Amino acid sequence: MSDATRDDPTLSPEYLTRLDAYWRAANYLAVGQIYLMDNPLLEQPLQLSHVKPRLLGHWGTTPGLNFIYAHLNRAIRKYDLDMVYVAGPGHGGPALVANVYLEGTYSEYYPNISEDKDGMRKLFKQFSFPGGIPSHVAPETPGSIHEGGELGYALSHATGAVLDNPELIVACVIGDGEAETGPLATSWHSNKFVNPVRDGAVLPILHLNGYKIAGPTVLSRIPQEELKQLMQGYGYEPFFLEEADTVAATHLAMAKLVDRMIERIREIQTDARKNGFHQRPRWPMLVMRTPKGWTGPEEVDGVPVENSWRSHQVPLAQLAEKPEHLKLLEQWMRSYKPEELFTAEGKLHPKLRELAPVGKRRMGDNPHANGGLLLRELRLPDFREYAIELPSPGSRIGEATRVQGKFLRDVMKMNMDSKNFRLFAPDEFTSNRWDEVLQVTSRMLAAEILPTDTGVAMDGRIMEVLSEHQCQGWLEGYLLTGRHGFFSCYEAFVHIVDSMFNQHAKWLKTCNDIPWRRPIASLNYLLTSHVWRQDHNGFSHQDPGFIDHVVNKKPEVVRVYLPPDANTLLSVTDHCLRSRNYVNVVVAGKQPAYQWLSMDAAIKHCSAGAGIWDWASNDQESSPDIVMACAGDVPTLESLAAVSLLREWLPSLKIRFVNVVDLMTLQPASEHPHGMSDKEFDAMFTTDKPILFAFHGYPWLIHRLTYRRKGHDNLHVRGYKEEGTTTTPFDMTVLNDLDRFHLAEAAIDLVPSLGAQAGHLRQRLRDKLIEHREYICRHGEDMPEVRNWQWKVK
Amino acid sequence: MSDATRDDPTLSPEYLTRLDAYWRAANYLAVGQIYLMDNPLLEQPLQLSHVKPRLLGHWGTTPGLNFIYAHLNRAIRKYDLDMVYVAGPGHGGPALVANVYLEGTYSEYYPNISEDKDGMRKLFKQFSFPGGIPSHVAPETPGSIHEGGELGYALSHATGAVLDNPELIVACVIGDGEAETGPLATSWHSNKFVNPVRDGAVLPILHLNGYKIAGPTVLSRIPQEELKQLMQGYGYEPFFLEEADTVAATHLAMAKLVDRMIERIREIQTDARKNGFHQRPRWPMLVMRTPKGWTGPEEVDGVPVENSWRSHQVPLAQLAEKPEHLKLLEQWMRSYKPEELFTAEGKLHPKLRELAPVGKRRMGDNPHANGGLLLRELRLPDFREYAIELPSPGSRIGEATRVQGKFLRDVMKMNMDSKNFRLFAPDEFTSNRWDEVLQVTSRMLAAEILPTDTGVAMDGRIMEVLSEHQCQGWLEGYLLTGRHGFFSCYEAFVHIVDSMFNQHAKWLKTCNDIPWRRPIASLNYLLTSHVWRQDHNGFSHQDPGFIDHVVNKKPEVVRVYLPPDANTLLSVTDHCLRSRNYVNVVVAGKQPAYQWLSMDAAIKHCSAGAGIWDWASNDQESSPDIVMACAGDVPTLESLAAVSLLREWLPSLKIRFVNVVDLMTLQPASEHPHGMSDKEFDAMFTTDKPILFAFHGYPWLIHRLTYRRKGHDNLHVRGYKEEGTTTTPFDMTVLNDLDRFHLAEAAIDLVPSLGAQAGHLRQRLRDKLIEHREYICRHGEDMPEVRNWQWKVK
Repeated sequence: MSDATRDDPTLSPEYLTRLDAYWRAANYLAVGQIYLMDNPLLEQPLQLSHVKPRLLGHWGTTPGLNFIYAHLNRAIRKYDLDMVYVAGPGHGGPALVANVYLEGTYSEYYPNISEDKDGMRKLFKQFSFPGGIPSHVAPETPGSIHEGGELGYALSHATGAVLDNPELIVACVIGDGEAETGPLATSWHSNKFVNPVRDGAVLPILHLNGYKIAGPTVLSRIPQEELKQLMQGYGYEPFFLEEADTVAATHLAMAKLVDRMIERIREIQTDARKNGFHQRPRWPMLVMRTPKGWTGPEEVDGVPVENSWRSHQVPLAQLAEKPEHLKLLEQWMRSYKPEELFTAEGKLHPKLRELAPVGKRRMGDNPHANGGLLLRELRLPDFREYAIELPSPGSRIGEATRVQGKFLRDVMKMNMDSKNFRLFAPDEFTSNRWDEVLQVTSRMLAAEILPTDTGVAMDGRIMEVLSEHQCQGWLEGYLLTGRHGFFSCYEAFVHIVDSMFNQHAKWLKTCNDIPWRRPIASLNYLLTSHVWRQDHNGFSHQDPGFIDHVVNKKPEVVRVYLPPDANTLLSVTDHCLRSRNYVNVVVAGKQPAYQWLSMDAAIKHCSAGAGIWDWASNDQESSPDIVMACAGDVPTLESLAAVSLLREWLPSLKIRFVNVVDLMTLQPASEHPHGMSDKEFDAMFTTDKPILFAFHGYPWLIHRLTYRRKGHDNLHVRGYKEEGTTTTPFDMTVLNDLDRFHLAEAAIDLVPSLGAQAGHLRQRLRDKLIEHREYICRHGEDMPEVRNWQWKVK
Repeated sequence: MSDATRDDPTLSPEYLTRLDAYWRAANYLAVGQIYLMDNPLLEQPLQLSHVKPRLLGHWGTTPGLNFIYAHLNRAIRKYDLDMVYVAGPGHGGPALVANVYLEGTYSEYYPNISEDKDGMRKLFKQFSFPGGIPSHVAPETPGSIHEGGELGYALSHATGAVLDNPELIVACVIGDGEAETGPLATSWHSNKFVNPVRDGAVLPILHLNGYKIAGPTVLSRIPQEELKQLMQGYGYEPFFLEEADTVAATHLAMAKLVDRMIERIREIQTDARKNGFHQRPRWPMLVMRTPKGWTGPEEVDGVPVENSWRSHQVPLAQLAEKPEHLKLLEQWMRSYKPEELFTAEGKLHPKLRELAPVGKRRMGDNPHANGGLLLRELRLPDFREYAIELPSPGSRIGEATRVQGKFLRDVMKMNMDSKNFRLFAPDEFTSNRWDEVLQVTSRMLAAEILPTDTGVAMDGRIMEVLSEHQCQGWLEGYLLTGRHGFFSCYEAFVHIVDSMFNQHAKWLKTCNDIPWRRPIASLNYLLTSHVWRQDHNGFSHQDPGFIDHVVNKKPEVVRVYLPPDANTLLSVTDHCLRSRNYVNVVVAGKQPAYQWLSMDAAIKHCSAGAGIWDWASNDQESSPDIVMACAGDVPTLESLAAVSLLREWLPSLKIRFVNVVDLMTLQPASEHPHGMSDKEFDAMFTTDKPILFAFHGYPWLIHRLTYRRKGHDNLHVRGYKEEGTTTTPFDMTVLNDLDRFHLAEAAIDLVPSLGAQAGHLRQRLRDKLIEHREYICRHGEDMPEVRNWQWKVK
């Protein structure tokens, strides 16, 4: 025993014996949650009536999670750490609930689950029980920012949480199952995006328990040396824990390793904070190889269970049919010696409770894990000041996202001191025209920076990595711990994080029902480089379907905006940055395009969410013959161009022009909080006139949102119908019948009263389309008539 | 110079000088494609009129891709290799087109693009030009199985391609941008799933050109030693190529490295095939560090372009405004010395053409890259033989996917010799009840296998890894090279590959328009562990939205099936395995459930896609009061249970019962090839009676598919509305108003003629719901009345 060890009371056999008891207590409570609905302290011999009729839960990962939790508690107390626990194997829900209960947090949040026998009985019963709590670590679990149902995002979440939190350490347990996923595999590289001066530290713990649901894991079946190379290749200094001959020895080894790693983190941070950050450190990480289902039944029905995939969920089942299983369960639970762990009243023994940190140092009560508690409003400049001055509609050209970028530049600047705002993008930050933000900050990189690099710095606040998964995961972690952000993405490729969006939306929905979870900043997406302007990259880059995906989630948590120009985009952006607990999806163009609304008009339009554009309509004196509606910048352009054709060629045709910014206004008010009343909808769209709707996305989304509206039978939607290739911008609309000529033709067809005039006009429009096709195939760009078109209607 | 080098004519300076010329020819053709529409051989001084008005394309990665292609050509000739080229940076489209043209393949597939001056002019002009070809490597490119627009899947595709193709080598270029994505990061581990005895080899080439669109890449900014550790940690033997002092030296170094790697692959394979496969080999891989935009303009407008992100797309732009750029372009193109490369007629010099492989050895003409050419039908057992014998509807219980598993077991068995069928699953193979396949094959693992493992073998044909991305990518690669497969996935988590599905569906859609692309086997999904039976895992596992996502793609390539029981699932499965060029999505339950249709009835029902179940209806003698429709196994159960309640309590109510298996039948025939005619639809659903549709997924999908139908205004859909947690199976339906009691109540409400009876029944149903809630919160499982319910209507 070294001097350091001898002098450290938390490494003494006595302390570690208590720590082992603490671990046993957590294991006991975990098994109790999975199995029992009564007799929590096993005061009576275990009977079938004490056991839940349906056994749900995941034992396999649980003892490992408990082991880590107990040792982290020790380190928190020893070093006074500010620490959050991310359980990648969040399906091991009983572990986190058990520990949060042991440290006293759980009963503070849920007084009904008290620290006594009755509380323990309820704790057991509620787990995976109707009316109780979910089987996974969930928003309901104090201390959690990570669900762990869908695997892959633990390390990204942990990284997002430590950004701009220099004192925070996030211990992040990664299961060897999860380690096989793509998002997790790339998230090891998060260490190239953490700055030890201003950010906290992630302590990854790869829990190699060897098995998934039904088979071995990949990383447990490669040589230790190879695994070491892998972790070194990822840029870490790996430490290894293996089960020792005795439990005491395993505890001692773990305690020492945890100390070494914490001290290494402190060294790295102290050095960087004192001497500046010059070189990316090799952060420590732990590979912990312990058996799946550790301390559980070794064998059941003659086959191995501990250290096998068979312990993944419930090691003992069919208790009603197999009385010997009930016996095994009782033996198993008693093997933890509950009588040594809990008082007769069912409270954790004071000598064990001493091992838990106190107050906000308890991982279940760490305020970072309830980010809304820490959330500070952003300081926001007046977005009106970034407006494009507009003498009249269509009189100027601007790049919407570039204008938004100016606004975001100043948001960044004004919150630089608060250190609570970051931007995230997969290699598309400049491409998406947010360049001006680079005037006040840089792309963040903690790896080598060359003298020739521009806009790259160790203290940048732009998080750019070619992984939508990482951007999303980091941003989620950042938001969940009480900060703000915006994610800019190519529209087609945001589908890469469809499932991550799902999980975040579900998390938010659940949080709305948990009073102690304080609201967090919304997750804001800018989707640009959108379908209509992927004429250069072609078919693979054309997909507007993310919004279809988004509107499947609870209306309470999702918002979709399609601002048609820069000023509306500014208004929407300001709104998104102020909102809480939503996912805001903003779809906007980055290409030079006509501007339609003055700032005042834009604010009014965005506040309503949808409205009639009088200046484009000529039905003021009468009722319209047709409603031309649109949503999205390119459809708005084509719709207006069609209107100007029609008004030139058919001045008697009465057109009402409607633009929709907030897509959710189309839904009935009963379906979405933003939904227009039927009265408003009918007044805007009429109940009996044809509506020709030019839509940014797949056309049926508009039908889906409006099918209960009176005018729905008169509604005709044009949108993207999966036609595209590398071609001209205007041709993209032609291929999908969304261009001005097709729209004008459709409008004519929808107004039967036009009679004889119609045939002639239709022919002119078709000639235009032929002319277009011939022109682009000859010249490779759009006709001057299209390129130079301007809104000139008075 | 070593003896080996001296003796090898393909390592001679003369040969490598020619190889360099070949490379220059490819570079010249690539630049030409990006810029020119005329004057292809630069016979005249370059003028603006020769240049395309819109410059679209990606230069940065292109010279590297060309360099690799030229060296692989050399190796193919030297070793007589059967080789396919996967270009991860597929946006470098000009490279692949240039090389396929140089080797003569392109003109064979597209005779209009002939091997002469006029052909070269057309080759240049068509690139990224309306009516021409896309800017990326695409289905239009001979030799390609990979688009490369959405990054991340190159190595998974390459791996899928070599499975069961022992003689095939797939050279897989991975950009350092792509290397940052999650799917790519985990796909390095594909080497644990390749068996050198029966599979071919993947040769990964990590192309470190240092930059993404606008900034440095992560892997180019870590020390070489760390990168080496990373690749070793992934299990490879990495080789490194850096640009040498002279081009000649770089060529020599590359040629030698390629030889070493090919020889290493052969050694590994020869050893394993002779001595058996005992230990996972360290396959070779190459890290090639060459500048982005290599050989392009070094500096433009005073800033570096070569070896910088600025060469990502078009290094010289604004040619009209900046005449000096036009000069630079001409200099650049002339730097390749086209006069040395092409004859006056515009054909590649015969001395260079000699360097290309011939016939099917040309990578552009490798039949594996047009998998339909090699596709052999599966031998299929008669699926009827696996039927559950059914005396009457609801008289037996079965697990649908387990029955499907028996069928798949025998499909596997019958095609074992053909080696063209594999199953893919992310850690859920057994969970999804395909266990019986394990009787005839195993999970594949080329890493360590322990004596305690069961169902794991080096020659297994079940590909199980906890990565939906890998499963999807491998399967796509396997299918694209002419084989068959099935992917079983948890329904909620298939969203992880939403974007991969997009790309595959787009690929198939495009292939339908390319006559020389032969049809390939469909991509088949079994989605199980579905939303209604994720009562145990809870909210994070509940999402039926993948089918919404799928139906956004072209109707020609997507099919969605919701078989309600085992026999219908068998019929659908057989159909899917016989189909070509589709994505088939099959949603089916794995839990014990009632069986409804005999095999004969199932076949009839599936052939129609939707139908009236007479045995559940009582409107035979008259018109119905209500149509009870359903799709999906649990909704079918609840709908039938509601019918049986109603028929007991309200015998006078005339109910028609409709079940839908093929969701696409609901769409108008004009929208989808499977769509029912309006006449059929109206006859089935009526045009004037209320329709209560119990649906597996989000309810609005049914509205979206049917909004053009006459009866749509009478349609009321119940489905998943994002309500759920860990609870009982029946409670999942209650939370979403899809249970029998809610359905019966809704039916009553929809038939106003019921009058006074309605109130009483409604109360009874509400009492049932209260009883349910109380029961589950007390007992933790569903009421016996629900659990033991049986169809007893005569």
